[in-house]
Amino acid sequence: MPGLLLRDARPWRAGGRADLLIRDGVFAGIGPGLPAGDAEVLDLGGRLVLPGLVEAHCHLDKTLFGGPWRPHSAGPALADRIADERVHRAELGLPTPAHVTALLETMAAAGTTHVRTHTDVYAGIGLTGVEVVRDVAARLAGRVTVEQVAFPQSGILTNPGTAELLERAIGLGVGTVGGIDPAGMDRDPVRHLDVVFGLAERHGVRIDLHLHDPGTLGVFELDLIVDRTRAAGLAGRVTVSHAYALAQADAATQDRLAAGLADAGVTITTAAIFDFPVPPVKKLREAGVNVACGHDDIRDLWSPYGSGDLLERAMHLAYRSTFRRDEDIEIALEAVTFGSAHALGLERYGLVEGASADLVVVDAETPAHAVVTRPPRDLVVKAGRIVARSGALTSRVN
Amino acid sequence: MPGLLLRDARPWRAGGRADLLIRDGVFAGIGPGLPAGDAEVLDLGGRLVLPGLVEAHCHLDKTLFGGPWRPHSAGPALADRIADERVHRAELGLPTPAHVTALLETMAAAGTTHVRTHTDVYAGIGLTGVEVVRDVAARLAGRVTVEQVAFPQSGILTNPGTAELLERAIGLGVGTVGGIDPAGMDRDPVRHLDVVFGLAERHGVRIDLHLHDPGTLGVFELDLIVDRTRAAGLAGRVTVSHAYALAQADAATQDRLAAGLADAGVTITTAAIFDFPVPPVKKLREAGVNVACGHDDIRDLWSPYGSGDLLERAMHLAYRSTFRRDEDIEIALEAVTFGSAHALGLERYGLVEGASADLVVVDAETPAHAVVTRPPRDLVVKAGRIVARSGALTSRVN
Repeated sequence: MPGLLLRDARPWRAGGRADLLIRDGVFAGIGPGLPAGDAEVLDLGGRLVLPGLVEAHCHLDKTLFGGPWRPHSAGPALADRIADERVHRAELGLPTPAHVTALLETMAAAGTTHVRTHTDVYAGIGLTGVEVVRDVAARLAGRVTVEQVAFPQSGILTNPGTAELLERAIGLGVGTVGGIDPAGMDRDPVRHLDVVFGLAERHGVRIDLHLHDPGTLGVFELDLIVDRTRAAGLAGRVTVSHAYALAQADAATQDRLAAGLADAGVTITTAAIFDFPVPPVKKLREAGVNVACGHDDIRDLWSPYGSGDLLERAMHLAYRSTFRRDEDIEIALEAVTFGSAHALGLERYGLVEGASADLVVVDAETPAHAVVTRPPRDLVVKAGRIVARSGALTSRVN
Repeated sequence: MPGLLLRDARPWRAGGRADLLIRDGVFAGIGPGLPAGDAEVLDLGGRLVLPGLVEAHCHLDKTLFGGPWRPHSAGPALADRIADERVHRAELGLPTPAHVTALLETMAAAGTTHVRTHTDVYAGIGLTGVEVVRDVAARLAGRVTVEQVAFPQSGILTNPGTAELLERAIGLGVGTVGGIDPAGMDRDPVRHLDVVFGLAERHGVRIDLHLHDPGTLGVFELDLIVDRTRAAGLAGRVTVSHAYALAQADAATQDRLAAGLADAGVTITTAAIFDFPVPPVKKLREAGVNVACGHDDIRDLWSPYGSGDLLERAMHLAYRSTFRRDEDIEIALEAVTFGSAHALGLERYGLVEGASADLVVVDAETPAHAVVTRPPRDLVVKAGRIVARSGALTSRVN
């Protein structure tokens, strides 16, 4: 692959203009007036360069993206949505390679270079979802990297056979084991965490747990997860998604939890959807907690919303956090870049020499301006390869 | 003006496809297979037609829209933002005709045909804002209709001379008198409402009060406003904007307030901004309360956010209301159309024969789909005249 030289770029956090020289898929040099050699040269005219966007939480296997509009068919309660999914999932043939492909292509064209997706694993569906997502991801590997979480949507203890399916998913190459509301869904928080942490310890996989449980119940579970992570020495390898209880807690409890999460090395992932509680991301960052961000559901049986554009998702996070100042809005941008990259365990991430050359170019005056206006993606580069120009993929894959 | 025939349209709530015949600025006929006569004919190919969007609450006089990105410069507290505005407003030369023009043109191109804007009126600025907005609005009158509220941003009782300025603003043609936190800002709710309702009764103008006061204090003020509106016989002519207390109240209090607001004919306008409380719009509509919606601040010293696109604003309202079903999402669309039109007192509004021919055409499968995806505005018509095509104004004004 010939090299690529991006002249007159304005890389985020580099403090000014620089050229970016890319060779063999990595940044070979960042600085002023770099020699092009035989590299293709693109002049960015001072446009802003962000590292490739990283989606930390979605559900590709559920999406109807790219298909016709489907009015939401469930009633208002959570139980209604679970029942609705049970009825319509098979009828709609989910997961559907065409929908998963359409969404991943849209994500890639919008500057997303890495995706973590929670794939349902339970008795009714077995490992079908894992296989469908794996096969689509393999076809799109040059454009976007997909990492799956084996996700026990319907519980583990309450659904016999699920623990074994999670283990088989790991055998298929899934690198992260999921969990869901150890108390509220599975009715036994300690035994639920026994299974999840047991799999992580035996197989060396990461952990990403859904935690919707509210109030003091959720706080209790966060404490359990912090303790387990410390005891197992899994710093940097455990994520709690949603963590509504952390948003609902009083300030003193938030402070205590933030210190614990930071010390244990547990990531908090938020999606800032609907009117659901958003953890105090500024306080968490100030305490040293890693914060990641993703879409959650995108145009599926759970939600008709979602575009796949992570700058829009960062806007929702900044907006719900009442961030007005540029440096605050950048906390949301950090969540969909560095924070999510850390959650996924991406090595060599960022606009630095030696890192994988993943980047997105936008016409924005500041990073906060990019979050507020979500301008078109002029250029997307993944591992040194031009993936998209002017918002469109450079070529379709088969 | 020659007529216009829109063939094969799909007007919202018409139950199917129809032609729309426009003559002399109004809908002369709506139905299948209408004769064109000498009218210009456009085939919409079954695309969705919405009535012109109506902005019920913004602050044109404060905007920096169209200018360079300006990082938010205020600290986190309300007092910081008030002090920041005092420092920077004059320095930035606000209100600026160029910024007001840029925003109104963007609004018009996005399908907004009517705007209510709150213009600051206080001793330091006098009626300058009212005059600037009036002059810009006059130049754009064929594209968008602007109605001003004389807005006592800094209080009435606590800022001697403001009541007289409000009266002079009415003398300049301003059709609505504003108010702001009669208790929290002006420290005397009854006397504050004496001034506002007194002006409305003496001059026949409408009322639109900002009410941020939270909790039981805000509920107390809502009750005062309901009682005053009934006593003054001002049904349909009074709006309360924001009404955070209504969002914070318990369900029984919400029910009681909703019944009172409906009976008195008081509109609730929400902007669904940041993480601020959103009144229970579905409950309000079910109780018969008129609900309107607008942007509030757009790219100004108070907020760096806002696009001028009312479909995006409807998305925020639907999203914060956790509306998933099409019929619920349409409640948010109703707020930026019929609800806001009612608040502004627009007569002959809607896609019906005899109404002013204000409409916007989008490529969306359902109205809810339009809110979720905010597609480009293919065509905008205001009083029978084509204002914008493909998201761009058909011609600039001087």
